[in-house]
Amino acid sequence: MGLIVQKFGGTSVGSTEKIRNAAERVIAEREAGNDVVVVVSAMGKSTDVLVDLAKELTDDPSKREMDMLLTTGEQVTISLLAMALQAKGYDAISFTGWQAGMKTEKVHGNARIVDIDEARIKEELSAGKVVVVAGFQGIADDLHITTLGRGGSDTTAVALAAALKADKCDIYTDVPGVFTTDPRYVPSARKLAGISYDEMLELANLGAGVLHPRAVEFAKNYQIPLEVRSSIENESGTLIEEESSMEQNLVVRGIAFEDQMTRVTVCGLSSGLTTLSTIFTTLAKQNINVDIIIQSVTSTNQTSISFSVKTDDLSKTVEVLEEYKGALGYEQIETESKLAKVSIVGSGMVSNPGVAAEMFAVLAQKDIQVKMVSTSEIKVSTVVDREDMVKAVEALHDAFELSKVSAAAHS
Amino acid sequence: MGLIVQKFGGTSVGSTEKIRNAAERVIAEREAGNDVVVVVSAMGKSTDVLVDLAKELTDDPSKREMDMLLTTGEQVTISLLAMALQAKGYDAISFTGWQAGMKTEKVHGNARIVDIDEARIKEELSAGKVVVVAGFQGIADDLHITTLGRGGSDTTAVALAAALKADKCDIYTDVPGVFTTDPRYVPSARKLAGISYDEMLELANLGAGVLHPRAVEFAKNYQIPLEVRSSIENESGTLIEEESSMEQNLVVRGIAFEDQMTRVTVCGLSSGLTTLSTIFTTLAKQNINVDIIIQSVTSTNQTSISFSVKTDDLSKTVEVLEEYKGALGYEQIETESKLAKVSIVGSGMVSNPGVAAEMFAVLAQKDIQVKMVSTSEIKVSTVVDREDMVKAVEALHDAFELSKVSAAAHS
Repeated sequence: MGLIVQKFGGTSVGSTEKIRNAAERVIAEREAGNDVVVVVSAMGKSTDVLVDLAKELTDDPSKREMDMLLTTGEQVTISLLAMALQAKGYDAISFTGWQAGMKTEKVHGNARIVDIDEARIKEELSAGKVVVVAGFQGIADDLHITTLGRGGSDTTAVALAAALKADKCDIYTDVPGVFTTDPRYVPSARKLAGISYDEMLELANLGAGVLHPRAVEFAKNYQIPLEVRSSIENESGTLIEEESSMEQNLVVRGIAFEDQMTRVTVCGLSSGLTTLSTIFTTLAKQNINVDIIIQSVTSTNQTSISFSVKTDDLSKTVEVLEEYKGALGYEQIETESKLAKVSIVGSGMVSNPGVAAEMFAVLAQKDIQVKMVSTSEIKVSTVVDREDMVKAVEALHDAFELSKVSAAAHS
Repeated sequence: MGLIVQKFGGTSVGSTEKIRNAAERVIAEREAGNDVVVVVSAMGKSTDVLVDLAKELTDDPSKREMDMLLTTGEQVTISLLAMALQAKGYDAISFTGWQAGMKTEKVHGNARIVDIDEARIKEELSAGKVVVVAGFQGIADDLHITTLGRGGSDTTAVALAAALKADKCDIYTDVPGVFTTDPRYVPSARKLAGISYDEMLELANLGAGVLHPRAVEFAKNYQIPLEVRSSIENESGTLIEEESSMEQNLVVRGIAFEDQMTRVTVCGLSSGLTTLSTIFTTLAKQNINVDIIIQSVTSTNQTSISFSVKTDDLSKTVEVLEEYKGALGYEQIETESKLAKVSIVGSGMVSNPGVAAEMFAVLAQKDIQVKMVSTSEIKVSTVVDREDMVKAVEALHDAFELSKVSAAAHS
């Protein structure tokens, strides 16, 4: 007897047949004697349909009204899933975000949860019902429906699991779990049985894309065990918890990669104390996400700063830098596109100082030039030519023996 | 400077182009110096799409979950209309039923409004905003979204107009107003400039279908002037108010008709005091709507009861009567289908006792047999063979000179 929070993403509820399938997953937990709270996203591409309607009316819809519009998507799914459960003879009740007590700050499109009034859900659970909650949405005050932004349904699920002190939060998705790297590029990629929150965070941030980083952080803060698993295949997925017990000795747990990177170098900056903050504050205000940052001071007391941005953001980045040329006082901007980021992630790295060196050695052996490097305690990221990306991932996957299940500590 | 409530039905907001057109109607009132509250229905056939999804999952969806599902339809429309207004430079805010303070009894699918907390809307109006409210929906308590049933958006509009003490409630629809009879059947049918609440009620109940009777009743109780008008053509429609000032002398204002009627006769009933109530209570419990009722007592102290039901309800009616044969104690049931109801409506009838007689004379002259009769102060209904229906309507429309604008008092 426990309490399980299940989350089904858009593809896992993309049709009434899939909703019926999701209902079967809920029923299996009920039959195993557990209480179940289910969090669902909007059906498949229904959000896109709504966005298109808004675009037909205006190029710049108000964020409040977009939230009003988009939250109908999950509301459709919750009612349908509740009906599917009822049709199978299981008592169920659906709640929108505001009915579920999901209180957020008053920000539209990307609100943070500030409080959950879990009393309502608990009451229905006590009455023996499955509670189906709309993901992605909340309420700022009675007048304003909000959304949690990208990956919002994951966050809803984990936040509810924390508020309800659930035993586990299962994230059902269209992949069977978290892999050592993207199996579409590296056929020998292997599904991980377990992974730590921090490793998952690095993988999520690096574009592994299965779980939203906000949700992982939430789970880590409240120590909620997460399982990423297939909504189609009936097999166990990847368990995410504080310390992965299963493969503890693995130094490198996975390899993440991301193409569409561009390097921007601002040369000949005056080395004033505020130069760095001025540049990155200016870019942040324009919603340009800067990734790796490298600063170098030359002998002439001048500074160069290199950073990576997504290629899509390049023209805007250059525009902003040129607009503020006076304030920043630099000589010139250099850019290099067609780059990619390849990162190795693993919590075992902390105690294995040689891992970064081994990564560089593997890349050098394959004649892959490393253009930028960034490290954290559990991650080493390198920027390479985009055309070398897959070769680099394959070589690293191989070198760190990620396709082997019970690989011993490496290096 | 006044306050106008506008209501746009599903066909009037069936596409983003039509929503833009509705926005123009709102803007025209704003430019005329009025505050505007707009009530909208779900876009065109979007409700049908949602109903179909539910049907794919279950034959018998819970009414609570159907309400949860269907209310997303209006929520989509309110956000889109608000965006359309904002895109034109007008400040607007959308409210769902619960945000608009639309409190109902806890009944799903057909709830009645019990209270409106109009403070929220007033606040936004004071701030200079157009307030766009989702029709058809309300809230029973924080956990239960309800719907008002058929014609619910009309009711929302009129109820809001009453709560806000609006000067007028404009019902925009896909017809230009209320006609003397259905112009699809009678080409000489004429749009009425004005009509009283009671006349409209009889016409609405008799299937004229432009405005829901609940909304008309609400408007009558709170003396809200209603105007039914075209959302496409820019012309005045039909004004509904206490006493129609424009065509006061017209005895017969309009002719309503309805096919798909069936007469059921229960013969040989024991004439106990409770027989009548037992029959109709039993039928009401099965949601069978009985229309005209005629009771006759024969010399042998036995009673026969005839009543009309919609043809769709016939098999269920017979089933219910047979199930309760023991309790009701009748001899046999006779039924006659392929009937139609034709009614003349006009508040001038009260003081013109000869109107019913004239109606029967007109029908007799056309060899139309009258099978049942029912009268009220402002209405005479007859049941005739379905194949005589259009002939009867045409003859009556002609005899009561309804195609003439300034017809003098008749008979």
